[in-house]
Amino acid sequence: MTDPESLADRVRDGELRIHELEEYADHDVAAAARRLLVERETGADLETVGEYSFPAERAEPNIENMIGAAQVPMGVAGPVPVHGGAADGEHYLPLATTEGALLASVNRGLSVIRSAGGADARVTKHGMTRAPVFRVDGVAEAAETVEWVEDNLGALREAAESTTSHGELLGVEPYVVGDSVYLRFAYDTKDAMGMNMATIATGEACEVVEAETPASLVALSGNLCSDKKPAAINAVEGRGRSVTADVVIPGDIVEERLHTTAAAIAEANTRKNLIGSAKAGSLGFNAHAANVVAAAFLATGQDEAQVVEGANAITTMDTRAPADGDENAPADLYASVSLASLEVGTVGGGTKLPTQSEALEILGVRGGGEPAGSNADALAEIIAVGALAGELSLLAALASRHLASAHEDLGR
Amino acid sequence: MTDPESLADRVRDGELRIHELEEYADHDVAAAARRLLVERETGADLETVGEYSFPAERAEPNIENMIGAAQVPMGVAGPVPVHGGAADGEHYLPLATTEGALLASVNRGLSVIRSAGGADARVTKHGMTRAPVFRVDGVAEAAETVEWVEDNLGALREAAESTTSHGELLGVEPYVVGDSVYLRFAYDTKDAMGMNMATIATGEACEVVEAETPASLVALSGNLCSDKKPAAINAVEGRGRSVTADVVIPGDIVEERLHTTAAAIAEANTRKNLIGSAKAGSLGFNAHAANVVAAAFLATGQDEAQVVEGANAITTMDTRAPADGDENAPADLYASVSLASLEVGTVGGGTKLPTQSEALEILGVRGGGEPAGSNADALAEIIAVGALAGELSLLAALASRHLASAHEDLGR
Amino acid sequence: MTDPESLADRVRDGELRIHELEEYADHDVAAAARRLLVERETGADLETVGEYSFPAERAEPNIENMIGAAQVPMGVAGPVPVHGGAADGEHYLPLATTEGALLASVNRGLSVIRSAGGADARVTKHGMTRAPVFRVDGVAEAAETVEWVEDNLGALREAAESTTSHGELLGVEPYVVGDSVYLRFAYDTKDAMGMNMATIATGEACEVVEAETPASLVALSGNLCSDKKPAAINAVEGRGRSVTADVVIPGDIVEERLHTTAAAIAEANTRKNLIGSAKAGSLGFNAHAANVVAAAFLATGQDEAQVVEGANAITTMDTRAPADGDENAPADLYASVSLASLEVGTVGGGTKLPTQSEALEILGVRGGGEPAGSNADALAEIIAVGALAGELSLLAALASRHLASAHEDLGR
Amino acid sequence: MTDPESLADRVRDGELRIHELEEYADHDVAAAARRLLVERETGADLETVGEYSFPAERAEPNIENMIGAAQVPMGVAGPVPVHGGAADGEHYLPLATTEGALLASVNRGLSVIRSAGGADARVTKHGMTRAPVFRVDGVAEAAETVEWVEDNLGALREAAESTTSHGELLGVEPYVVGDSVYLRFAYDTKDAMGMNMATIATGEACEVVEAETPASLVALSGNLCSDKKPAAINAVEGRGRSVTADVVIPGDIVEERLHTTAAAIAEANTRKNLIGSAKAGSLGFNAHAANVVAAAFLATGQDEAQVVEGANAITTMDTRAPADGDENAPADLYASVSLASLEVGTVGGGTKLPTQSEALEILGVRGGGEPAGSNADALAEIIAVGALAGELSLLAALASRHLASAHEDLGR
Repeated sequence: MTDPESLADRVRDGELRIHELEEYADHDVAAAARRLLVERETGADLETVGEYSFPAERAEPNIENMIGAAQVPMGVAGPVPVHGGAADGEHYLPLATTEGALLASVNRGLSVIRSAGGADARVTKHGMTRAPVFRVDGVAEAAETVEWVEDNLGALREAAESTTSHGELLGVEPYVVGDSVYLRFAYDTKDAMGMNMATIATGEACEVVEAETPASLVALSGNLCSDKKPAAINAVEGRGRSVTADVVIPGDIVEERLHTTAAAIAEANTRKNLIGSAKAGSLGFNAHAANVVAAAFLATGQDEAQVVEGANAITTMDTRAPADGDENAPADLYASVSLASLEVGTVGGGTKLPTQSEALEILGVRGGGEPAGSNADALAEIIAVGALAGELSLLAALASRHLASAHEDLGR
Repeated sequence: MTDPESLADRVRDGELRIHELEEYADHDVAAAARRLLVERETGADLETVGEYSFPAERAEPNIENMIGAAQVPMGVAGPVPVHGGAADGEHYLPLATTEGALLASVNRGLSVIRSAGGADARVTKHGMTRAPVFRVDGVAEAAETVEWVEDNLGALREAAESTTSHGELLGVEPYVVGDSVYLRFAYDTKDAMGMNMATIATGEACEVVEAETPASLVALSGNLCSDKKPAAINAVEGRGRSVTADVVIPGDIVEERLHTTAAAIAEANTRKNLIGSAKAGSLGFNAHAANVVAAAFLATGQDEAQVVEGANAITTMDTRAPADGDENAPADLYASVSLASLEVGTVGGGTKLPTQSEALEILGVRGGGEPAGSNADALAEIIAVGALAGELSLLAALASRHLASAHEDLGR
Repeated sequence: MTDPESLADRVRDGELRIHELEEYADHDVAAAARRLLVERETGADLETVGEYSFPAERAEPNIENMIGAAQVPMGVAGPVPVHGGAADGEHYLPLATTEGALLASVNRGLSVIRSAGGADARVTKHGMTRAPVFRVDGVAEAAETVEWVEDNLGALREAAESTTSHGELLGVEPYVVGDSVYLRFAYDTKDAMGMNMATIATGEACEVVEAETPASLVALSGNLCSDKKPAAINAVEGRGRSVTADVVIPGDIVEERLHTTAAAIAEANTRKNLIGSAKAGSLGFNAHAANVVAAAFLATGQDEAQVVEGANAITTMDTRAPADGDENAPADLYASVSLASLEVGTVGGGTKLPTQSEALEILGVRGGGEPAGSNADALAEIIAVGALAGELSLLAALASRHLASAHEDLGR
Repeated sequence: MTDPESLADRVRDGELRIHELEEYADHDVAAAARRLLVERETGADLETVGEYSFPAERAEPNIENMIGAAQVPMGVAGPVPVHGGAADGEHYLPLATTEGALLASVNRGLSVIRSAGGADARVTKHGMTRAPVFRVDGVAEAAETVEWVEDNLGALREAAESTTSHGELLGVEPYVVGDSVYLRFAYDTKDAMGMNMATIATGEACEVVEAETPASLVALSGNLCSDKKPAAINAVEGRGRSVTADVVIPGDIVEERLHTTAAAIAEANTRKNLIGSAKAGSLGFNAHAANVVAAAFLATGQDEAQVVEGANAITTMDTRAPADGDENAPADLYASVSLASLEVGTVGGGTKLPTQSEALEILGVRGGGEPAGSNADALAEIIAVGALAGELSLLAALASRHLASAHEDLGR
């Protein structure tokens, strides 16, 4: 009685609950039973959802109540030379998306970057954070708690690091609001994105805080972390990796390949990405960095909800005097993208799933790096270069369309 | 010579470019050729990436340089009764994610909501926006342009709506910063998410603006739209759908099912989601709404990068006197989630892809609604209920864990 | 027994309360009695505080528990030609401040603007807002309330305008968060800053809302107004006056008077005011607009606490090709300041106090304008020009200092 | 020829410039001459502006082009017991404002706090910041610069502290955006507000950075400081003093004195100050803290433009079980205000001016404290208590008005 039909019947009849099916059948059968149940109840046909290409059991750490898989088209852009702190050499960038034209746009950008010799990239800050909130009686106790924390970082480190073989506590920053105390713990989580590692380690440290101070834990996350919310604290102080990619595109390449000028691109960037975003009250001073972040995250098994913080990015575009000193040459274009809080890992989470793992292989960063953390650094750097390509391509399109229409105007 | 190996060779040899393969072979062969090329260059094995379950040609509107598909585990939560303005009846919610425990958490929340009789939901505002930026000579011309726009909404509507059979221009809001003028066009795009529709219509209207005023278009998007950036303008004024879901959970259900009290949940929500987010400088006053938004978007073919704005959500939790007036009964819990800028559609974009289309069928909102727009409204309402379930479940977990430790403390 | 000593004794002995003294003596004696009381209790000598130059009674609408006056140095900068929508001709700008070098800096900026022929200025949007918050049972009632409001703007206007002879209701914008409904009322308050007018009118309209909908008023201000808080809603949508001032400074004037170049100033503005502010998560993309706003507010009797919103300003600086078309001439500088939410009035509030009234006379905008509102418009435009001067002067100082050090570097 | 008339004539005739008059006459005569000049040019009568009560020379460090003084009514509220880290005992709070009802409101709040035994207050973080921006060639150089800074804090401290006898460098935080590097220097400036001290010290440190790294200084302030702008970096990380004041008001006092209940006040605070501010995209989660900050700043000679950051405040209000354990007693009210970035000093700036100095005497914090910094800490704590009083009074007024109307409703 553990075939899909029987199991579906038994859930319908209230004998089993929908999340218990794996106790009665293997994971693939359980998923089939759920599809059957849902098909009966809703009239939907879930044939393609059921045509996933991996043993359902392999997805156990990633999902409950599994019915199958969403299939999202994946393409590649590149290759592009990346001169990073961790990444090096030519890379194809795998992107999964349903947004038409995105791959073509990034590909064009990467191609231009390649013509310019490749892009530089650096992780300039790192640290996965978790910030519990404690209740105190009032500000007198809050001040006492803050003082204790500042004086006892060693004890907190000992507790936190007792829970992990890899992670290291980088620091703890206290914040006081009335009778709430927030402690923002930051960790080096090496090649893991590290949210779970940080949560477990912080949980252990919280017990020390509760034992030694008047503070009482209310929630292990008090939103100053800040995970999956568009918060200034991440845009300012970073979370995961703060990473920048940049490139100088010679003026003749701008003209030949992007059909516009460095000055026109810089103007579009200033009016749109800087001033427009300023007026919009934005934490995102870019054109569409989130597109590349989301598509790269999806391809490589990152946490899709963390695209929210990945979008805390600033794009700059400026003219530079031609490198060769020729006064009559068109100006070069300096372009950069700085992603404040890109949370990525090459181990754990969704990275072990088959298609995601294969995508990481394309990038040469599957699994733990040598030294530890270098694979995740490299992944961050390559994604940043991809975002830079997307910005370049879109800004150039906007600028050249304008130039085109300006030319038409003149032609009248 | 159009087998994958030959095509891969020809790209390697520089005879063909990687994005041109569809001109020489069908889409599946082209994808196979690219896999081969990438496998050779990187050493990766892309077997599973190639095992997608639909004709590659069907993904043509969604991707270029296709190599296959990412497969992301999909599960279902529910069913839950939704009392919406458009949605009605019981619904299973399909979610695709790699984040373990998410489905279980949402499922628990939905189950509690179901025990409470289901959730209410309403779309309280809607409008897909596009905001071009224009250059003027200075503020004198800017004021002149603004005045013209305010006086000639009819002409702009005529131009904009000439490009679409469905869309309607709802209004145009001007913003001036120095010698830049931004015009935020808002449209009713019915069951389409509508970004493309809005862009095309706005492009047409821009020609009228350029013809009739001193303003000159710099970029069709000036970032006051604001698409895929965490901007206050969306959190305040909305984009796509502004949608709220709420529920009152009887006190005894809170105790039996969530193992805590309404007061404890409300306290955790206030200190974490309200005060913690305030201190973090956040536009997201919630626990993890982005998780549900991202997973529902992925399952149903929405634009993953728009999770950024979907995270502009406020969660409220409060105690209410028991509905039955029993003074000794535990307090009820009022819980709500308000998503300011949820951009969803049931036609276009990724919604036609096989697994995504099947997921929309589960929800009963595939394709255009009757009346137009009602399917997308219903989808927004159901996602909001899913987000509400996720918030309930996580806040309760935080609150009960705390209660548990409080009990232990007392037991010492 | 109504001399200062006796009154002070009676307060000390608990016979009188400190705020009741005006019932027993004239306002100047009451103030003297309070000074005496405070001097005795604290040992302070309040001689100069007591040397104010107006009958204390005249300050009755402005203060309670008066002990005297703070005296803040006032200077003038200018004159400068302002080509505004309301302001016209040459103006001296009175500024009261304790920040050394501010007057000198603004004066230098105004002098440069004068050399360039004066500045343009325009009020591009106006409306004083008040946003009450209502409690509803849930989102179903919230949607019902919003719909009623949108359908009954006439009734709300009638109620609101019944309380004022001058004010006009411009519109009402509803916002829903869970079981809270916020209605942002916007008014044309003519030459008054208008906060009180808006509050009273909105109070009347709230009674209609409560009578006709399920909504129940919780607070007459629900912080979406948003008064005296640094809120994006004001930076985006404006409050009071949205006003821009701008100027083109010929390249030779930039060099001779500011000892730098348009390009250097533009670079400093971009890296500091645009990119630096972006990274800081700021609503203020300027150098020190708040300095001029605060000093002009203080001189002219505006509400000092509204400097908070006055600081929601964006400064842009850019090069322009020389107006005379001479290719060898140095580039001109375009400079602008856009203040999103400058709340000013020329009647009411502190504008009637003697020194403040005299400062408004310097500007030629004391009392009501003809037509109504034009004096407050003119005041906003002149303050914007003052802020522009401050930005120009400071940015030039930063840029030229850098040039100076660059020159030193070259000299090594 | 140095009487006011002659001097005014000579300025009019272009012989002298308006800012040069102090070279030809004493400061009072120079001011008189300017008044005369402005009166002639504008028709204004500046009699009261000229009736200031201190030698004009004394204002030399505070103003240029002086014409006199603005006189702003000053009152006192209190006394109130403050239990601070630095402040102690009963204090009257001097406030200068033109906003009627503000003093009365604060006075009521302080009176209630006094009835509850006084308020606690603590400075929980301090540091005056200055953040220069440097140009580098690209991110490779940026990373190199950041690394140098992190490895050479000692050299930066030595340079910075060489310029000041009091100030201490607390730390330097680097931020990278493309080819811009920002270094946020934080100082302990003791009893001085410290902006000038921090600027001079940072200038010296910048020379070391330029000498030792590839970075080139663009502007001594790069807006990550962030001075006089409403920036999240200050709201999150603090600037000047981060200070909290709080109090528990017994339930019977809430009822008798504020005519409402703790629950009603807490509800108004949640819907207005927390949720309303959240929806407004605000950095100010309070009712009107800026009113008290502005009025106290004006009275005590602080920098009025820094009210902008002073408004980065969070107010919390919550019910607490009665302290005496009586189950039938009404709930107590916990109320707090946390000001993230209150920049105050008791030496330098406007604090030496006569009326301002007298106001500091009222508070007992004139001049340098013992130990150094304690007077400025105490001033911050007392202002926080004043802000708390203002919040309490206004929230209670909103809540009781509502209760009143609720009672009327019930009476119908």
